[in-house]
Amino acid sequence: MDLPASLLSELAETLGNAVLLDPSERLAYAYDNSRRQALPDAVALPTSAEQVVALVKACRAHRVPVVPRGRGTNTTGAAVPVAGGVVVSFERMDRILQVRPGDRCAVVEPGVLNGDLQAALAPHGLFWPPDPTSAAFSTVGGNLACNAGGPRAVKYGASRDNVLALTAVTGTGEVIHCGTETTKGATGYDLQRLLVGSEGTLALIVQASLRLVPAPTARRALRAIYRDVSSAALAVARLMAQPVTPSMLEFMDGQAVRLAREVGGADLPPEAGALLMIEADGDEAILAHDIDALKRAATGEGLLALDDAADEAARQRLWAARKALSPALRTLAPGKINEDVVVPVSRIPELVGGVQELALACALPIVCFGHAGNGNLHVNLMYDPADELQAARASAAMSQVFALAIRLGGTLSGEHGIGMAKRDFMTEAVDPATLMLMRQIKSVFDPDGILNPGKLLPP
Amino acid sequence: MDLPASLLSELAETLGNAVLLDPSERLAYAYDNSRRQALPDAVALPTSAEQVVALVKACRAHRVPVVPRGRGTNTTGAAVPVAGGVVVSFERMDRILQVRPGDRCAVVEPGVLNGDLQAALAPHGLFWPPDPTSAAFSTVGGNLACNAGGPRAVKYGASRDNVLALTAVTGTGEVIHCGTETTKGATGYDLQRLLVGSEGTLALIVQASLRLVPAPTARRALRAIYRDVSSAALAVARLMAQPVTPSMLEFMDGQAVRLAREVGGADLPPEAGALLMIEADGDEAILAHDIDALKRAATGEGLLALDDAADEAARQRLWAARKALSPALRTLAPGKINEDVVVPVSRIPELVGGVQELALACALPIVCFGHAGNGNLHVNLMYDPADELQAARASAAMSQVFALAIRLGGTLSGEHGIGMAKRDFMTEAVDPATLMLMRQIKSVFDPDGILNPGKLLPP
Ligand SMILES: Cc1cc2nc3c(=O)[nH]c(=O)nc-3n(C[C@H](O)[C@H](O)[C@H](O)COP(=O)(O)OP(=O)(O)OC[C@H]3O[C@@H](n4cnc5c(N)ncnc54)[C@H](O)[C@@H]3O)c2cc1C
Ligand SMILES: Cc1cc2nc3c(=O)[nH]c(=O)nc-3n(C[C@H](O)[C@H](O)[C@H](O)COP(=O)(O)OP(=O)(O)OC[C@H]3O[C@@H](n4cnc5c(N)ncnc54)[C@H](O)[C@@H]3O)c2cc1C
Repeated sequence: MDLPASLLSELAETLGNAVLLDPSERLAYAYDNSRRQALPDAVALPTSAEQVVALVKACRAHRVPVVPRGRGTNTTGAAVPVAGGVVVSFERMDRILQVRPGDRCAVVEPGVLNGDLQAALAPHGLFWPPDPTSAAFSTVGGNLACNAGGPRAVKYGASRDNVLALTAVTGTGEVIHCGTETTKGATGYDLQRLLVGSEGTLALIVQASLRLVPAPTARRALRAIYRDVSSAALAVARLMAQPVTPSMLEFMDGQAVRLAREVGGADLPPEAGALLMIEADGDEAILAHDIDALKRAATGEGLLALDDAADEAARQRLWAARKALSPALRTLAPGKINEDVVVPVSRIPELVGGVQELALACALPIVCFGHAGNGNLHVNLMYDPADELQAARASAAMSQVFALAIRLGGTLSGEHGIGMAKRDFMTEAVDPATLMLMRQIKSVFDPDGILNPGKLLPP
Repeated sequence: MDLPASLLSELAETLGNAVLLDPSERLAYAYDNSRRQALPDAVALPTSAEQVVALVKACRAHRVPVVPRGRGTNTTGAAVPVAGGVVVSFERMDRILQVRPGDRCAVVEPGVLNGDLQAALAPHGLFWPPDPTSAAFSTVGGNLACNAGGPRAVKYGASRDNVLALTAVTGTGEVIHCGTETTKGATGYDLQRLLVGSEGTLALIVQASLRLVPAPTARRALRAIYRDVSSAALAVARLMAQPVTPSMLEFMDGQAVRLAREVGGADLPPEAGALLMIEADGDEAILAHDIDALKRAATGEGLLALDDAADEAARQRLWAARKALSPALRTLAPGKINEDVVVPVSRIPELVGGVQELALACALPIVCFGHAGNGNLHVNLMYDPADELQAARASAAMSQVFALAIRLGGTLSGEHGIGMAKRDFMTEAVDPATLMLMRQIKSVFDPDGILNPGKLLPP
């Protein structure tokens, strides 16, 4: 598709030379961290909400797609302009407008990097809870649009739990103000949490007031090794049912432990069938108490070893097994499908057990690890993309993983979102009446369907 | 309005004799805790979601209003059937279906009383955070529909922060399933938090999966007395900017302190211009540490006295001043308008200062107290309803309180909701484009406008 000349001149009028048209420049905005790619017809780099309004109105008049973009680190194709049109990159709207410690609130433009925000908050003794591993190179706008989380979500919540108010531009180019900068509100419908996780399909977020949390001054880690997944999962349930909520509660299945040991060289016993990394944070004075409580909860049937990191160096050593994992995975096969299904915590053993059966059935290794306290496991299916039969088996197995998670009372994604990768499975996760309602809500925000077409909702 | 005979027979077919038609029986469902009243044409007492579906479909066919009802304790007229029609009381759908400690989840029918749920959770060492003062006689469905909170919300959040999944019946009689029973999710639009706070105008909640929290085993209270409101508000900001989040942080202005002392007989110094009740909860072993941190934060310019309750009896004595307040208010005037505006914490001094100016201007006493940690103050305007001039001044002053809260970056309600009482002010709190979107969302859920007409959205 070529953009109409009148639209191009309108964009130029609004944005000056902050419109990229050269194919080589556009190429940098064609892909994201999925393997997908599609060249946009233009890339806009707005510096203000007014420019966003003008460009959405112009695109709407021509029924041209508008695809908001942070830094393209999402894993689902959510930022790929599959239907062409204009990518709106927020890289130049990256200011931190306010930090108000007494209100526990920061007001930011969407393009600020999560890591830059955290650095600006640190001197105030505050942080913004969402902590995706991509924090250093993903944006707050992208975090919000995906409802990104991370290990800390078990204690502090994900993006949706940490937003007070949003200013956004709908598919009609209207500016809407959702929520207020207060930690409580009962004034009309909650639109800001509706925008969080909507993957740019309802509105473009142009300003966000974020809920901040006082930063803990210290943290301490435990590593608990179990005979099998069920013992570890029972420990997760015990850990979550007592008052000291861990600040991280990460799980590795037997495959993951074996990889970390055999390939990553981590110091782990061969009979380990599962591992938990457990962290507490808070004031130095109470950490000992909290760690004791977590140790008691971690202890039970099937525990093989419980290591307590007395200092930061020991803590790093304990985490080494987890860190060794991602590189080690690559030794299994050149390709990986990594999905982040989520189930109620009590169903983790059935999920991992079912996944291992699928691995046997499809004769491909599947490695599970992730955020156990939220029941949010990363299921890594390893295969050779060059081998068509393997690729077909891998993708069939992944459909069965989704079906399994849904059967266990869980759903498709805990934090990565739907994008293009999982939208065909939405009909399995969401019943027809609810899905129809989602479609109608989409039509209210974006009557012409110009915002990020082809994402989240199934065709 | 008389209900069509065919609707009456459809209701009888669906509900048997669980339809009340006798005027004296209907009268009990005509009012709520606002002073408003309107007789419904019928009252349905369903025992299952299927019955709710059938009755909504029948009412829709006849364009007859459907008004969901918990126990009518809301203060805004939200449960009053102003347009007649069928009140759906959930009093017979009051079962606790599941308590799953390892998942920190309870599944309930909407009519269960908050207090009964808490009692059922206590043996598991868990609780559901929303703690309205009405807990003993308000329902979980009503709490969710109003986004009810309470003093504990400062640490544990309000209803919206503590819901995992909802099953609901829309205005077309469709059953929708919103969310999953997991503490994290990135799978489509977040409809369950949209339903929370929607006051029965979008759908009838027929089942709720609630997020539970481990119950603290101990708590301890502080009472901090300040020279003036600004000193107290600065202390609130300090308290909220350090890592130990209080489990309660309640504020009383100078008027409230004076009343508690002079009328309620509370032991308070005459020079007290404001008071904070501060509580910490958690494990006995760490409470001393937490209380120390809170004491340090409470201390500063303008602090007159800081009392620490060493035991439960002392704790009760400290709370006596707060408890004395509501009865004491009545000595000021027979009538009261009590609104629960909310502002960012840093704006509390301006809110209280502005309210005192309004009190002078309208020559009526206004007493402010409430949930300071959320900036959620109860503004109590005292007047004689029999005196028409006073009543007019009172209602004009309350409009100005709303305008003030909005000017300070806050909004109309922190936890009581909009209902009929505040819907005319929605146009001041929410801009036209956002309000239009709310109306369109209402139309998606309830195309014929039969669900709780006349509430939340302005005419
Ligand atoms: C190494 C690595 C580690 C990761 N770890 C995690 C993790 O631990 N947890 C986790 O949750 N995710 C993780 N991710 C996924 C990804 O980083 C997150 O989804 C992140 O939030 C995406 O941010 P972004 O700025 O790159 O957004 P993009 O990828 O550019 O966009 C993501 C989506 O948001 C939309 N969008 C972006 N900005 C806006 C806006 N202003 N308004 C409206 N819509 C907008 C886009 O249209 C798209 O749909 C990881 C990714 C990588 C590559
Ligand atoms: C003494 C007293 C103290 C109070 N203290 C507090 C407090 O501290 N904090 C606070 O937040 N509130 C407080 N309230 C207000 C009130 O108790 C709450 O709003 C409560 O949540 C209402 O619950 P209910 O069951 O009485 O609902 P109702 O009053 O019957 O209904 C309230 C709204 O919810 C809707 N509704 C009810 N059930 C459903 C359902 N299943 N599906 C859809 N919609 C439904 C109704 O249509 C109505 O719009 C107090 C009230 C009183 C009288």
